[in-house]
Amino acid sequence: MLDEVQKGLEGVLVAESGLSSIDGDAGRLIYRGYDIGDLAEEATYEEVLYLLWHGELPTREELARFTDEMTEERTIDDDVRRTLRGLADAEEAPMAALRTAVSALSADEPEGDADPADLEATRRKGRRITAKVPTILAAFERYRLGEEAVSPDPELGHAANFLYMLTGEAPDDVAAETMDQALILHADHGLNASTFTAMVVASTMADVYSAVTAGIGALSGPLHGGANQDVMEVLLEVDESKMDPLDWVRTATDEGRRIPGFGHRVYNVKDPRAQILQERSEELADASGDTKWYDYTTTIEEYLTEEEGLVEKGIAPNVDFYSGSVYYQLGIPVDMYTPIFAMSRVGGWVGHVLEYQEDNRLIRPRARYVGAEDEAWVPIDER
Amino acid sequence: MLDEVQKGLEGVLVAESGLSSIDGDAGRLIYRGYDIGDLAEEATYEEVLYLLWHGELPTREELARFTDEMTEERTIDDDVRRTLRGLADAEEAPMAALRTAVSALSADEPEGDADPADLEATRRKGRRITAKVPTILAAFERYRLGEEAVSPDPELGHAANFLYMLTGEAPDDVAAETMDQALILHADHGLNASTFTAMVVASTMADVYSAVTAGIGALSGPLHGGANQDVMEVLLEVDESKMDPLDWVRTATDEGRRIPGFGHRVYNVKDPRAQILQERSEELADASGDTKWYDYTTTIEEYLTEEEGLVEKGIAPNVDFYSGSVYYQLGIPVDMYTPIFAMSRVGGWVGHVLEYQEDNRLIRPRARYVGAEDEAWVPIDER
Repeated sequence: MLDEVQKGLEGVLVAESGLSSIDGDAGRLIYRGYDIGDLAEEATYEEVLYLLWHGELPTREELARFTDEMTEERTIDDDVRRTLRGLADAEEAPMAALRTAVSALSADEPEGDADPADLEATRRKGRRITAKVPTILAAFERYRLGEEAVSPDPELGHAANFLYMLTGEAPDDVAAETMDQALILHADHGLNASTFTAMVVASTMADVYSAVTAGIGALSGPLHGGANQDVMEVLLEVDESKMDPLDWVRTATDEGRRIPGFGHRVYNVKDPRAQILQERSEELADASGDTKWYDYTTTIEEYLTEEEGLVEKGIAPNVDFYSGSVYYQLGIPVDMYTPIFAMSRVGGWVGHVLEYQEDNRLIRPRARYVGAEDEAWVPIDER
Repeated sequence: MLDEVQKGLEGVLVAESGLSSIDGDAGRLIYRGYDIGDLAEEATYEEVLYLLWHGELPTREELARFTDEMTEERTIDDDVRRTLRGLADAEEAPMAALRTAVSALSADEPEGDADPADLEATRRKGRRITAKVPTILAAFERYRLGEEAVSPDPELGHAANFLYMLTGEAPDDVAAETMDQALILHADHGLNASTFTAMVVASTMADVYSAVTAGIGALSGPLHGGANQDVMEVLLEVDESKMDPLDWVRTATDEGRRIPGFGHRVYNVKDPRAQILQERSEELADASGDTKWYDYTTTIEEYLTEEEGLVEKGIAPNVDFYSGSVYYQLGIPVDMYTPIFAMSRVGGWVGHVLEYQEDNRLIRPRARYVGAEDEAWVPIDER
């Protein structure tokens, strides 16, 4: 028994894992040994899912089979569609709608009766959930616009098909590639709060629908998944102010405002994912000819790191600082940024569920009791 | 940084709490200082909710207002009903149906836009969820029987109204009192896996709908909430065997079978909740004149504790050992036992969310990375 309360479990090791590793001082992130930069550059999101869930990169044949299975599993049934339409009509928040819809998916799971310890079945269930998340999100977005959902296009990959279902138009190569990279970059990141949530649920040998639903709930919290939206709202504020971005950020910091998208409990230097998304942001700006969002972000980053000296304090741009403006340039509504984070991170949640359940132990910590000890019952009229 | 992996976080203190405390050697459980026996005997479930959420027992006026509010909040909207009907038609598992329906409730939350840090709003949201869980469960049960749901009866308390909505008939006093006690006994129990799940979710400042939905998912796992159902299935097996229960248990243990409902990670002696439920089981048996279920349980307990010497090993009946046969005698379907556990424990989940968010810190542990380190990218055709 450890005597100290481990608030936030900071630094506490709760499991062994071979999925991802973060070197916070070097600014390095690997998935199963592969550098995140290599994966973003060379792999597809489907290939990264295979790597995370199977432990190694697929052969061409394995990847083709895996991708085909995911493509077939994209459709959602009429009950889930009806539920989503009701949630859209009720103006439900997108993350809450996703949470409810993913939870509802289990009713249509063909292996719903599988033994909870059957990890092969769990892997297939996890694949089905992951395949359906973009369909859910795109349908919800279309419904709340008062439009019909767009059916998945089996000719398109996971990322491109999402953009297609969202907008009704097949994305160009830059957009499709950028979306795919964003999914790869967010797929896993150690035991963040949502991944740990999924693990705690899985430790009861609950099924992966429960674990993923819980992960979505955790990611919906403003301290976890909401920061990319916060960054975009700041950039929109810069834009509306009509100020020079350098003047804006100088004024904002002079006023003591905290700019979102900086600092991370794990990284002391620039998040490698931020570096990659910054490059994508520049490419999107070059392709469209509108560089203002890219300029705002780089100006703010330079000012904060150089003038305000955040770098010396170990505070640098994190993944959220650049993902917001990338999604904005892809034409994605601001309140869908966190759901897109979930659409990617479901891969990590499923991977950690599989890994933890393989050598499972129920997660049951303790609290130090600081309440009253021996209260005698007092009848209600004597209170 | 602690160097050892704390598998299952066993014995690790993750928070301070004033909600409940377990003395595993004395077999004692208290909620905010009050002995569980006193609470079961003297309080109503609503009174215990007030105690858990507000920190002290209510005055008569406070309790009346609180109970009135909960009574008014029992109804669920048509969207949730439609979703539940679809889940019943699809033969969804009751815990999964509850998870989806509770998640769906947030769309109808009148304070959905409240600041996540507004704990008074969170307390009201938690009360609304707690008020609606019995309505959800009873409606689901009626729908899967092909019947219409029964509307809540505002004249009945939380426990009695649940039995009424489930069966369509107002319960007698013994049944209503037993149900109320069962809810009190299961309301909180330290940082069990589902409560800890709710806390991890809440630590992101996600809303209480996300936390409770996640808790339901965790409780659905066979290592957590399913044991009372397992016990009842064993008792039904004893009954079908037509054997003398003593012969049955002797044969079963000789064959090396593990009887569910014995042993607990926290208790080394008989769970105080088991003691109370055993008394209720006896009362129900006396009231109905059918004592067989009570006899089976006591015979099995006596044999295992005395003949097999489990007591010396610190293995004694836990709460699940007696709750199953109590629910069976109340006429509740076996697969609703874990949902009833959830219907009670939601009180603890909400209480821990309120307590944790009052002095919040994001829960983000670490894993020891044991995977590959420096994998060079291999093009797909070279794998």
